[in-house]
Amino acid sequence: MTHPFLDLAPLSAERFAAIEDRVARLLDTRQDVVITQGEALLPLEGAIRATATPETIALNVITGPYGQTFGNWLRDCGATVHDLAVPFHTAVTADQIREALNEHPEIDFVSLVHAEAATGNTNPVAEIGEVVRAHGALFYLDAVASVGAEPVLPDAWGVDLCVIGAQKAMGGPAGVSAVSVSERAWTRMTNNPHAPRRSYLSLLDWKERWIDTGRKALLHAPAQLEMLGLEACVARIEAEGLDTLMSRHRAAAASTRAGALALGGGLEPYVHDPREAAPVATTLRTPAGVNASDLVARVLAADPALPLAAGGGPLAKEMIRVNHYGTDATPGTVRACLTGLGTAMAEQGLAVDVVGALGTAERA
Amino acid sequence: MTHPFLDLAPLSAERFAAIEDRVARLLDTRQDVVITQGEALLPLEGAIRATATPETIALNVITGPYGQTFGNWLRDCGATVHDLAVPFHTAVTADQIREALNEHPEIDFVSLVHAEAATGNTNPVAEIGEVVRAHGALFYLDAVASVGAEPVLPDAWGVDLCVIGAQKAMGGPAGVSAVSVSERAWTRMTNNPHAPRRSYLSLLDWKERWIDTGRKALLHAPAQLEMLGLEACVARIEAEGLDTLMSRHRAAAASTRAGALALGGGLEPYVHDPREAAPVATTLRTPAGVNASDLVARVLAADPALPLAAGGGPLAKEMIRVNHYGTDATPGTVRACLTGLGTAMAEQGLAVDVVGALGTAERA
Amino acid sequence: MTHPFLDLAPLSAERFAAIEDRVARLLDTRQDVVITQGEALLPLEGAIRATATPETIALNVITGPYGQTFGNWLRDCGATVHDLAVPFHTAVTADQIREALNEHPEIDFVSLVHAEAATGNTNPVAEIGEVVRAHGALFYLDAVASVGAEPVLPDAWGVDLCVIGAQKAMGGPAGVSAVSVSERAWTRMTNNPHAPRRSYLSLLDWKERWIDTGRKALLHAPAQLEMLGLEACVARIEAEGLDTLMSRHRAAAASTRAGALALGGGLEPYVHDPREAAPVATTLRTPAGVNASDLVARVLAADPALPLAAGGGPLAKEMIRVNHYGTDATPGTVRACLTGLGTAMAEQGLAVDVVGALGTAERA
Amino acid sequence: MTHPFLDLAPLSAERFAAIEDRVARLLDTRQDVVITQGEALLPLEGAIRATATPETIALNVITGPYGQTFGNWLRDCGATVHDLAVPFHTAVTADQIREALNEHPEIDFVSLVHAEAATGNTNPVAEIGEVVRAHGALFYLDAVASVGAEPVLPDAWGVDLCVIGAQKAMGGPAGVSAVSVSERAWTRMTNNPHAPRRSYLSLLDWKERWIDTGRKALLHAPAQLEMLGLEACVARIEAEGLDTLMSRHRAAAASTRAGALALGGGLEPYVHDPREAAPVATTLRTPAGVNASDLVARVLAADPALPLAAGGGPLAKEMIRVNHYGTDATPGTVRACLTGLGTAMAEQGLAVDVVGALGTAERA
Repeated sequence: MTHPFLDLAPLSAERFAAIEDRVARLLDTRQDVVITQGEALLPLEGAIRATATPETIALNVITGPYGQTFGNWLRDCGATVHDLAVPFHTAVTADQIREALNEHPEIDFVSLVHAEAATGNTNPVAEIGEVVRAHGALFYLDAVASVGAEPVLPDAWGVDLCVIGAQKAMGGPAGVSAVSVSERAWTRMTNNPHAPRRSYLSLLDWKERWIDTGRKALLHAPAQLEMLGLEACVARIEAEGLDTLMSRHRAAAASTRAGALALGGGLEPYVHDPREAAPVATTLRTPAGVNASDLVARVLAADPALPLAAGGGPLAKEMIRVNHYGTDATPGTVRACLTGLGTAMAEQGLAVDVVGALGTAERA
Repeated sequence: MTHPFLDLAPLSAERFAAIEDRVARLLDTRQDVVITQGEALLPLEGAIRATATPETIALNVITGPYGQTFGNWLRDCGATVHDLAVPFHTAVTADQIREALNEHPEIDFVSLVHAEAATGNTNPVAEIGEVVRAHGALFYLDAVASVGAEPVLPDAWGVDLCVIGAQKAMGGPAGVSAVSVSERAWTRMTNNPHAPRRSYLSLLDWKERWIDTGRKALLHAPAQLEMLGLEACVARIEAEGLDTLMSRHRAAAASTRAGALALGGGLEPYVHDPREAAPVATTLRTPAGVNASDLVARVLAADPALPLAAGGGPLAKEMIRVNHYGTDATPGTVRACLTGLGTAMAEQGLAVDVVGALGTAERA
Repeated sequence: MTHPFLDLAPLSAERFAAIEDRVARLLDTRQDVVITQGEALLPLEGAIRATATPETIALNVITGPYGQTFGNWLRDCGATVHDLAVPFHTAVTADQIREALNEHPEIDFVSLVHAEAATGNTNPVAEIGEVVRAHGALFYLDAVASVGAEPVLPDAWGVDLCVIGAQKAMGGPAGVSAVSVSERAWTRMTNNPHAPRRSYLSLLDWKERWIDTGRKALLHAPAQLEMLGLEACVARIEAEGLDTLMSRHRAAAASTRAGALALGGGLEPYVHDPREAAPVATTLRTPAGVNASDLVARVLAADPALPLAAGGGPLAKEMIRVNHYGTDATPGTVRACLTGLGTAMAEQGLAVDVVGALGTAERA
Repeated sequence: MTHPFLDLAPLSAERFAAIEDRVARLLDTRQDVVITQGEALLPLEGAIRATATPETIALNVITGPYGQTFGNWLRDCGATVHDLAVPFHTAVTADQIREALNEHPEIDFVSLVHAEAATGNTNPVAEIGEVVRAHGALFYLDAVASVGAEPVLPDAWGVDLCVIGAQKAMGGPAGVSAVSVSERAWTRMTNNPHAPRRSYLSLLDWKERWIDTGRKALLHAPAQLEMLGLEACVARIEAEGLDTLMSRHRAAAASTRAGALALGGGLEPYVHDPREAAPVATTLRTPAGVNASDLVARVLAADPALPLAAGGGPLAKEMIRVNHYGTDATPGTVRACLTGLGTAMAEQGLAVDVVGALGTAERA
């Protein structure tokens, strides 16, 4: 029998390029899109190492744990880094960016995480993009936790390096990822003698030996199963409609937030302003005296499949994360999470209204 | 790349036979096991048409919708059929069988459904088997809805024709099925000049051209993908342990039953005696004035993925089925079903205790 | 991760119906197409049992082994059967059919195999169809070994019951199959009180409970993996183009035939007239003194993957079958088969020209 | 239906570690084995960047194209590099290595490619390992094109960094790879302040955050489909037996070599000494006046599926590569390649004996 499900003749360059083009359409971008053969950390690191030099003056916005990593890579390349950290319960504002750029007019690189799965906030990239563009700095964006859940529009927003992965809202594989690169960013790289070349980290290799030669021959054997998984993932999103997919995420976030508030018992959204809450995950602050890790453990004991986690590091005691992305961006998952939290809180003697919470969640 | 996941060289006779042997081990039987190339209806029908003749006097036990079908096939073969129907909220008892056999001592064939997914009851096959065996009749059992959820033991129970399918508790494919056949049953078939031969319905073809020739060559091209699916399903059960799988189903049934009672609002188990309740599905009777179909529709509107259904035909108004089998035999599914029912009932003004029901379900 | 390759939510009735419609387009038919949940033997048998009665007078054309089976089923239904057997090295002609119909004007049913994989011949169904239609008999066609390799056009040819399977030229699964049914054939069935109903063999069940009710609910759980395999198979054929697929088979047959003749050593096409040779498989007659089974065994010892077999039964000594269908309908497979035969014959001292044969095959 | 084929719950750390252990068993090593989340170029580069410093004095053996790349990486790290290049038609000898080490006793790093798929030679790593070990240098080996086709034994041979990929003889996925690391190599890395850390290139990250913490949590989401593909690939090799797999490759190489010689027409093995010929691929030198690229194009026109290629770069005119690895390590593929070459040469008027070549190949 000819194989009915998987096409495992070697993945052709033509098909690889077609997958890149479909990802580009998903981002509505005319920039070059390179599908990188590793987890999203690969292009995130590769893009910084290719563009940052000792001459670089960077504004590194820290709204969650990844900002710290980006700062380390920038410093490793010799760049001068101005960190702009905001509390994890809020987003950074375009005004804060403008202020930082005015304070350090020599800044020529801005790094930002779009949505933070770990802390549940999302940043107003459209507005920030205008500010960065007006200033003239190169704009680097980590959109791994936003793509599929909310708009990611490199061209409209003036993003020069936009990195995505399929493993969150897209519900796809994690083993390949993608980066869209503007002409400006390519120029910055080609002018950088220290940019990685002939290296697994190199984006320039893909430009020079793949894009500039007409995408005829791959640099090396690809992660074929992940590529087929990505192709199937994009096909699924095209069939469902990106707008529908994003609506599902928005609805899950709104339901979780409203339901948690209606639940009572002192549970509160961690991100104060709903406009700053990420569609990919909702973070909640536990009431005083309730240890978040213990509560999560209690909920998972009753239903181990729920996409719930306590916050990381110092947030472990006070933050609960509800990861309603991909196949979990459904009313059923939201309901199960609210029910689990509510019953576990009730058992601790907290006054909660599970039925009311579910009704509120459904209407939200 | 050699195909990593699916082996699609033509399925060899050797591998086909090995799958049969693994199914036999699952049933702890030394009878011949034939894997039939169609849904379980194929061996259910094939077994009756091969054994029933105008001389046959059958006791056909009706504890759900399939009993009627078996009776039709039996009559179609010219058999004299004594139907023994019991209310759908109970199981048949060994005493009832004994009485029927005493009343019609000429009965030489007994047909029975083990567990009824449609009505939620399960019959005491071990005890019934003793009675049938003592009487000497051929014992035909439909174990499609029990295998994987509760013990199915043809040899220990004296079942002559035991039909199973993988699509319920086993969480496997529906496109192939299996029947274990005792020596007595083979003899009855070979003595029946009207038994189907050279027919898709024929079990004798498999005996004569497959088993008796050493299982060297298949009768025709098999449903290869379904066979591989069945092989993977059995391997998964072997890895999990059949006992563990059955425990999961028992626990789901006990939780659902206890939780529904604790929910209040007038919801009641449809099957009165918990020992007669099937592990594969729990049926519930809605309180007076609450239409089961409407309530189910309401629940599914909030969470379309729940394995809930209203009863069939005349039961549509009063019966709710919670199908907690296969991947749904989990605490999470049980919780989601109870929550869904509870909130929908609360919205109709019924006094329910969702938190209490979930706690009770977890402890059950 | 959402599953990248296989969609294993239960197969919906809508998707099942869509697969039927795509199969209908492949056959260019407006007749009802039923996808039957078993190997093609199921609808082949089901169609005869539904239409043949003791009143039926059948012309059963035997051009290979299946004709005998059809005759048995017809007789089993009480029909009067006139067998028309032709030597396996030729096709039946429209004139022979006309003659038989003139001889027995009461004939109201004609059964025919389109192409015979076992003997390598193919029958002129278009011409035969005209004759049968003019006579008014119901026309039953087994197109399992032709569909995908040569045109199969029930409407254009006036076929009333056209059975196909995907496991040969279509390169698809064997566990589900299909039959297209004309209005005339449905009428014959509904008028037949002995037509199987509420049976796995029943086509009427699909008409009454599936087609006539708007294809809303399946009769039973389908062979989902085989259905998805068939869907993928049809999608692949649509992408390649049915014409291209048929061209590949024609080319493989022409190459094999021409190459075998050019090979020399006494090897000859078994089917004398190239117009009567099936595109699905080429049968060859071994020279006097060369045992076909031995020669095939010798070839397979050197290259076990070749799609070669000796003839069945009495043909085992003199016939070699080259099964160049599905993924084997390629120049590479034809070349490997010719090379294998040529070298094995050379080792037996026969004068063969392998290089010449391959050149001839390539040009054919 | 529970998914029958692919387990796509997130890949657990436990299962990831189990795959590492099975790869370690395949290499018969007690060293740490890290499965790297990218093509084998990733650990090849990562291992050099982690161990090479400006103090490093390296002997870089060049027996094919990859040696040049390794030299570049070494120089990029500031190392002093002594290149030892041997003609592509031979292997390097242990004596040549000994001589080079004696000449530059300060050498503390030796890099070597085991087998060269591009040129068809294989190097005597066991003997070389003894020499390197006696000298005390760190021994870095690229075994991507040898693993599965011939023994790869890091412990027995004293290899400190042994990199493998599954995409050649193992017939597995290319998107993940593996490296075994000796204690000495880890020490060299930890003492190197410039070794990549918190980087996609970092091996130390895996040591410190994965191995040293008991392999409890992965550093980032893995390439799950490739990991499952690798797991299936290793399971398949375990089932077939590594020895059997290697035998298949040795037989394919011996057959191709002997068959090419018997073919005549001036075709010759590129690698003179059969003991230096790689089991993974056989390279052939075309006779004077026959352009290798043209000949290969001619062969592929007749049978596009053959694993044949012309040599790279300057070798394009004179070298033909027969890539008989993985699923192509079969008599059938060897026969088809010899037949293709023979018939194409015959058409150019060269005197070849295809039948004789195939007979010789079969006996070899």
